[in-house]
Amino acid sequence: MDNKKIKIVTIGGGSSYTPELIEGFIKRSNELPIKEIWLVDIEDGKEKLEIVGAMAKRMVKKSGLDWKINLTLDRREALKDADFVSTQFRVGLLDARIKDERIPLSHGLIGQETNGAGGMFKAFRTIPVILGIIEDMKELCPNAWLINFTNPSGMVTEAAIKYAGWKKTVGLCNVPINCIKQDSKALETPEEDLFFKFGGINHFHWHRVWDKNGNEKTSKLIELLYNPENADSNNEAVVANIKESKFLYEQIKDLGLLPCPYHNYYYATDDMLKEELQSFSKGETRAEVVKRTEAELFELYKDVNLDYKPEQLTKRGGAYYSDSACEVISSIYNNKKKIMVVSTLNKGSLSDLPYDSVAEVSSIITSHGPEPINFGKLDVEPRGMVQLMKSMEQSTILAAINGDYNEALHAFTINPLVPSGKVAKEVLDELLLAHKEYLPQFEEVISKLEK
Amino acid sequence: MDNKKIKIVTIGGGSSYTPELIEGFIKRSNELPIKEIWLVDIEDGKEKLEIVGAMAKRMVKKSGLDWKINLTLDRREALKDADFVSTQFRVGLLDARIKDERIPLSHGLIGQETNGAGGMFKAFRTIPVILGIIEDMKELCPNAWLINFTNPSGMVTEAAIKYAGWKKTVGLCNVPINCIKQDSKALETPEEDLFFKFGGINHFHWHRVWDKNGNEKTSKLIELLYNPENADSNNEAVVANIKESKFLYEQIKDLGLLPCPYHNYYYATDDMLKEELQSFSKGETRAEVVKRTEAELFELYKDVNLDYKPEQLTKRGGAYYSDSACEVISSIYNNKKKIMVVSTLNKGSLSDLPYDSVAEVSSIITSHGPEPINFGKLDVEPRGMVQLMKSMEQSTILAAINGDYNEALHAFTINPLVPSGKVAKEVLDELLLAHKEYLPQFEEVISKLEK
Amino acid sequence: MDNKKIKIVTIGGGSSYTPELIEGFIKRSNELPIKEIWLVDIEDGKEKLEIVGAMAKRMVKKSGLDWKINLTLDRREALKDADFVSTQFRVGLLDARIKDERIPLSHGLIGQETNGAGGMFKAFRTIPVILGIIEDMKELCPNAWLINFTNPSGMVTEAAIKYAGWKKTVGLCNVPINCIKQDSKALETPEEDLFFKFGGINHFHWHRVWDKNGNEKTSKLIELLYNPENADSNNEAVVANIKESKFLYEQIKDLGLLPCPYHNYYYATDDMLKEELQSFSKGETRAEVVKRTEAELFELYKDVNLDYKPEQLTKRGGAYYSDSACEVISSIYNNKKKIMVVSTLNKGSLSDLPYDSVAEVSSIITSHGPEPINFGKLDVEPRGMVQLMKSMEQSTILAAINGDYNEALHAFTINPLVPSGKVAKEVLDELLLAHKEYLPQFEEVISKLEK
Amino acid sequence: MDNKKIKIVTIGGGSSYTPELIEGFIKRSNELPIKEIWLVDIEDGKEKLEIVGAMAKRMVKKSGLDWKINLTLDRREALKDADFVSTQFRVGLLDARIKDERIPLSHGLIGQETNGAGGMFKAFRTIPVILGIIEDMKELCPNAWLINFTNPSGMVTEAAIKYAGWKKTVGLCNVPINCIKQDSKALETPEEDLFFKFGGINHFHWHRVWDKNGNEKTSKLIELLYNPENADSNNEAVVANIKESKFLYEQIKDLGLLPCPYHNYYYATDDMLKEELQSFSKGETRAEVVKRTEAELFELYKDVNLDYKPEQLTKRGGAYYSDSACEVISSIYNNKKKIMVVSTLNKGSLSDLPYDSVAEVSSIITSHGPEPINFGKLDVEPRGMVQLMKSMEQSTILAAINGDYNEALHAFTINPLVPSGKVAKEVLDELLLAHKEYLPQFEEVISKLEK
Repeated sequence: MDNKKIKIVTIGGGSSYTPELIEGFIKRSNELPIKEIWLVDIEDGKEKLEIVGAMAKRMVKKSGLDWKINLTLDRREALKDADFVSTQFRVGLLDARIKDERIPLSHGLIGQETNGAGGMFKAFRTIPVILGIIEDMKELCPNAWLINFTNPSGMVTEAAIKYAGWKKTVGLCNVPINCIKQDSKALETPEEDLFFKFGGINHFHWHRVWDKNGNEKTSKLIELLYNPENADSNNEAVVANIKESKFLYEQIKDLGLLPCPYHNYYYATDDMLKEELQSFSKGETRAEVVKRTEAELFELYKDVNLDYKPEQLTKRGGAYYSDSACEVISSIYNNKKKIMVVSTLNKGSLSDLPYDSVAEVSSIITSHGPEPINFGKLDVEPRGMVQLMKSMEQSTILAAINGDYNEALHAFTINPLVPSGKVAKEVLDELLLAHKEYLPQFEEVISKLEK
Repeated sequence: MDNKKIKIVTIGGGSSYTPELIEGFIKRSNELPIKEIWLVDIEDGKEKLEIVGAMAKRMVKKSGLDWKINLTLDRREALKDADFVSTQFRVGLLDARIKDERIPLSHGLIGQETNGAGGMFKAFRTIPVILGIIEDMKELCPNAWLINFTNPSGMVTEAAIKYAGWKKTVGLCNVPINCIKQDSKALETPEEDLFFKFGGINHFHWHRVWDKNGNEKTSKLIELLYNPENADSNNEAVVANIKESKFLYEQIKDLGLLPCPYHNYYYATDDMLKEELQSFSKGETRAEVVKRTEAELFELYKDVNLDYKPEQLTKRGGAYYSDSACEVISSIYNNKKKIMVVSTLNKGSLSDLPYDSVAEVSSIITSHGPEPINFGKLDVEPRGMVQLMKSMEQSTILAAINGDYNEALHAFTINPLVPSGKVAKEVLDELLLAHKEYLPQFEEVISKLEK
Repeated sequence: MDNKKIKIVTIGGGSSYTPELIEGFIKRSNELPIKEIWLVDIEDGKEKLEIVGAMAKRMVKKSGLDWKINLTLDRREALKDADFVSTQFRVGLLDARIKDERIPLSHGLIGQETNGAGGMFKAFRTIPVILGIIEDMKELCPNAWLINFTNPSGMVTEAAIKYAGWKKTVGLCNVPINCIKQDSKALETPEEDLFFKFGGINHFHWHRVWDKNGNEKTSKLIELLYNPENADSNNEAVVANIKESKFLYEQIKDLGLLPCPYHNYYYATDDMLKEELQSFSKGETRAEVVKRTEAELFELYKDVNLDYKPEQLTKRGGAYYSDSACEVISSIYNNKKKIMVVSTLNKGSLSDLPYDSVAEVSSIITSHGPEPINFGKLDVEPRGMVQLMKSMEQSTILAAINGDYNEALHAFTINPLVPSGKVAKEVLDELLLAHKEYLPQFEEVISKLEK
Repeated sequence: MDNKKIKIVTIGGGSSYTPELIEGFIKRSNELPIKEIWLVDIEDGKEKLEIVGAMAKRMVKKSGLDWKINLTLDRREALKDADFVSTQFRVGLLDARIKDERIPLSHGLIGQETNGAGGMFKAFRTIPVILGIIEDMKELCPNAWLINFTNPSGMVTEAAIKYAGWKKTVGLCNVPINCIKQDSKALETPEEDLFFKFGGINHFHWHRVWDKNGNEKTSKLIELLYNPENADSNNEAVVANIKESKFLYEQIKDLGLLPCPYHNYYYATDDMLKEELQSFSKGETRAEVVKRTEAELFELYKDVNLDYKPEQLTKRGGAYYSDSACEVISSIYNNKKKIMVVSTLNKGSLSDLPYDSVAEVSSIITSHGPEPINFGKLDVEPRGMVQLMKSMEQSTILAAINGDYNEALHAFTINPLVPSGKVAKEVLDELLLAHKEYLPQFEEVISKLEK
């Protein structure tokens, strides 16, 4: 980037994550010459935007920085001449997530907001909005980077790059950074003394680890994290919505790769479902818990004396998400060449996935974007599942763009978290009806269902 | 083949299918100069071998042919100088199949002998035997063709070609020929006026159809077979163990490809399971039904006056299986260049599957073996599932060869018909114990389980 | 095709090949219900069109057929409602070919009309015309098949399919059929008792041969054709412009593949060049010889009593070209499923070439077009050269379409028959100026050169 | 690497490059805890080893380091427990190189020691020796890294990794670092402010460049280096054996990639040949010049007062070669994660080259070896040539290992610097005879030629 001061825009600025984002920028104030930060939200999020926006201003002020924090409901005003646009919005807010989780569970299916039926509906709601944002960006800030951390991050990023043609999109997720911290702790070795190589797709990636002497530590970590003899001490929740790892040791032992926590849904479907059904029956699905946590957070944020990120936010579940976004922005701005795990165009870095699809892969973050480190071919065991998941993602994206019912049903059929057949169709129909107002592309389909 | 008279060996010669096989050879007596047919079986199958062998002799005699029919329990004696070896044996006989089906069902899983947990155990039992047969063939008939129609046909063929190195292996299944007959009937057009192009893997293939004027009929067939408005009249059982197609029309409508009946297990898992559980509760799983049918067939075969294939055999389920084997043998012998659907090395004919794996694909059957017709890339929707299934197959083959428990568990984890997690492990363990005597490669694993 | 009678259009109908084409149709009169044949040519070819057209009418009349033979200079009138359009035109006539050959030779380069600098200019002249024909076809006969045998056949076919989007294009060349006849003769075995598998690109393909007993005969043929001990008796000219094979036996011996005659240009460049330079100095380049032969042919054709293809045409060089075109047309019309070697979309049949490029490959000719037989991966030795040639073809096609000078120079640089550097540029410039009137896409480039 | 002190072995230690290597280690003495350096040579190189070894000792002594410098002719003694083995030997010394260059030129062919006929013979002489070294390493230092900078570096590295199975091999060349320095100078921008991405194979790679603001500078560099209006001032010799770039601007202008200097041989073959023939006629081929330079260098080295790398060595031609080796060793030892251009297993980083072949590609150098940065697919123009060159390399390696005459002739046929046909065979035969004593694998072939 040239030496001019930068303008950052955050869509979904009223999110409870915003204080972490602001904290992340403040931490990097000597490397990021920020001029202004725009927090954008929609009418329904106005109150939250004002609360969190006021707090952001207090945080910046306390740090003695001259950054201008702007709050607006006018996305186009904000985007004008932006350098970085980060997206953390949630179409339909947490109430939509509650439906994403409870409706599948009411049919006995995994209810989960990123990979199962719920995650697919999150894609259906989000992708048209991201395409609209990019339309605005083409006009208003044609050189800006889009840093997406709206879930499902991989699908949203693929839609942005392949369908909207916005090459300067980087997708983010906090799972890799949490894996890194878990591994580092288990090995009792600082992160910076380890080399991590991740490959796969969002919420379905694998990684390998080496120490600074060049010895691969992957098998050692499998022992520490997944051998029941050791696992208890190391098996802390890496992702807040997966309370504990449920893998069977034998499933992981010989893989030569470390799974990500979301693999639990596919490797221990029965246990994950059982646990979720219990939460469901108690009104404690992850969405409901988060909704309560958020309400508490916003109560805290209202405190006009609070001018730092409160501890409770870390428990919110998205820890490191916003910090990753700040780090990517700084790496691009400063051409840091830091290795980070991002969703970016595959271009052959994983030979088993389509060349022009989005992969989540360790990449060098340069000022011209991520340069993926080659991951190579997968062994027999992990290969098929990630290929299936990519097929499911691509079918979901197509349905999200075209509003095509049969495509949506096929995406449901493919997804291993959705039992195929009539039940899939019932859940699909019920979710379409429940999310009607956020699915303009399915308008015709939904009106038929209503008859 | 040179003009010498040919020697055909059938391993599992005591099978109830044998009369169809003999009939197939008799039908082709003017194109196949057979000298001798050897029916081989094991001690446990001796009685059946004698019954069916006697009948085979009557059939040949009635046709006025001078073929020598030899019955033997000595495989090596039979293999000496063979030209064609066909395999139709069933390790553990139908009692093993009953376990393959009932044990998973007792845990609420699809019980099915080719693709689910049962089919994987059929692979575990069969692959070591096929490797042993090939060891004998290398010594005794190094130029013979191996025509495999023991299930799971794709996995057995891949093991034979890749692991035993027997390139002259052709895998067969009767599903494609049944699909062809169904399509021909639905279109009211003779088979020979249609062009069929199949691609995929055994029990998981797709096909397209054109008429003689070059018009693609795939969509028309989808309408005729899967649109509920038409389907009833056309939707007859194509495969005896799948009583009726359970696909949702919307799943199939836009695929541009026709599924195979076994796709029902993956597209309509819930309905298929429900139906199987009903059969299970009544002691009428497919294996149990077949066992009774077979008993009846052998009663018929005992009739010293019966010298033709009885009508009841057609209902047995494997219709056209043996006839396909005869046709492949004749196509190889006579360099017919007939297009048939076989399991053979992929070598790029399906770009989405590993180059050196076995695919089931329309091929020209020449005297030097099958030459696959290029199928090309699959669309997003079918791509991922067949890639997953190939991964499952390859993991299963590895476990079958190495007797590796973790590999077996991973194969179970991958298979979409086996819910992942503890239940998979329970079913795996129970099946290992149940089939103990036929799983020498898992001996160590099983003895641990027994403790 | 439906049962209606068919209309065939031949662009370049005034060609000396036309009598063979007519003969080919007459031979197939009982399988091809022809209604009318339109011979189209341009103003410059009017005289030849009338001579050869009159002869065509005599041939048809002699055969007692009621086909209407129409001669026209109005391409659009002819194309209306056509079923098959065959292209055999030569932009710039033989005078252009003389330039294609003599100008490179005058700089010491191979002068050859299909693969070297000359062939590239033939592509530059031809591709814009073929794109124009397809524009007309989209409007006037949107369901017609385009059977191209204008050289360079592979590049023209790729341009037609990829750039003009005409999927119903089949490219033809007579080299494979000549190879088949040569092999058959050398083996003293009828063609129909051999199985041929060709793969590569036009004028740069390889093939393997098996006999009816499944024994591969490729090595035997290498011995017969390329071992100097045997070669003399077998090494007759397969292609009229390559008087005798110049391969070194050691180059071919271990390939496991049979080369095509045009490989001589790349394997024996020095000898081929020496021979061409001799012809050049005597005014006997292939083009000049052909021009004289053609003049003689047209003298014969003028004979109002001549009503059959004269023997001299066979010596013209393009033997079997037209007959192949008739056979492809009949195979499509009658859904013959005959195996022929054609230029068609690769779609993975040769794994080493781009998926969406055109390959020349053994294909089953059905009523919906060619279905390529999978050729698989090439060994190390042939792989790189055919990849280079495909790159050269694609660069040439891009230059032909865009009129891009730098692209044209790059195509020259890549081509192994053009020594890279200044001499390539000189030859390129001189050919651009020489062919100015037929290169509208290079108009701007040429006008700069003229300054 | 663990904290123990390291042992470095240099095969070909008597090379004139050794002082640069020693200087490189001295420069890095605070990051590389060296215990001992072993310089190994053969009997014929004993005198040079002693001269350069004495000088190395003086250099180390002057720097006040306690490293032990050992000189030996016993390779096995040296290899025992080595941590790093670097190879810079030249089989047959410079006299062999003189033959590599003069013999082809005497037939009118490019005489060049890495890519043409000469380079192929360098591979024939070197590969058997490298395989022998690895045999020793397997026994004596099974954990050591092999840092190869013996040319042809890419082929030697591929032989080491694929055929000897030594995965811990890194191939080096000084061309990329020279390109980087040239680009940096032309852009008047420090190296560290630019991002370079290289891909291809040794002496046939391309690269792209970005500045620290994320702007691609590739086109700008093409202008500066290859547009005749600018080129003179920037076009300094990057590689000593290529006096000046001879590319035509039009060849490079639209490539979107920067070539390497060795591309001149393939893009400006005629000019390169002309220049070489002039040198040839004057007895000033590169090999002859180097031989004289070396003699002078060794005169300097004999000076017992010289204890630093003399300026003249930089002019020797291999500038930065040894320094790159030191940097790779330090990056591995210290897990620096520095981005360097090395020859390493492709594994998909260049989709157009075989997965399991060696590519020269920008890689992160970690303590477990190079991790290539994904380069992706090449455009049409560069694609074919690098595929051809890889095919040539692989054919050359096969011939080098098997001593197969026909394979060698095929490698010659493929190489665009060798005109195909009889002249290729003559040059091949003459080189085989000339290098007889260093080609044990071709013993039988050569004895036939001698008859």
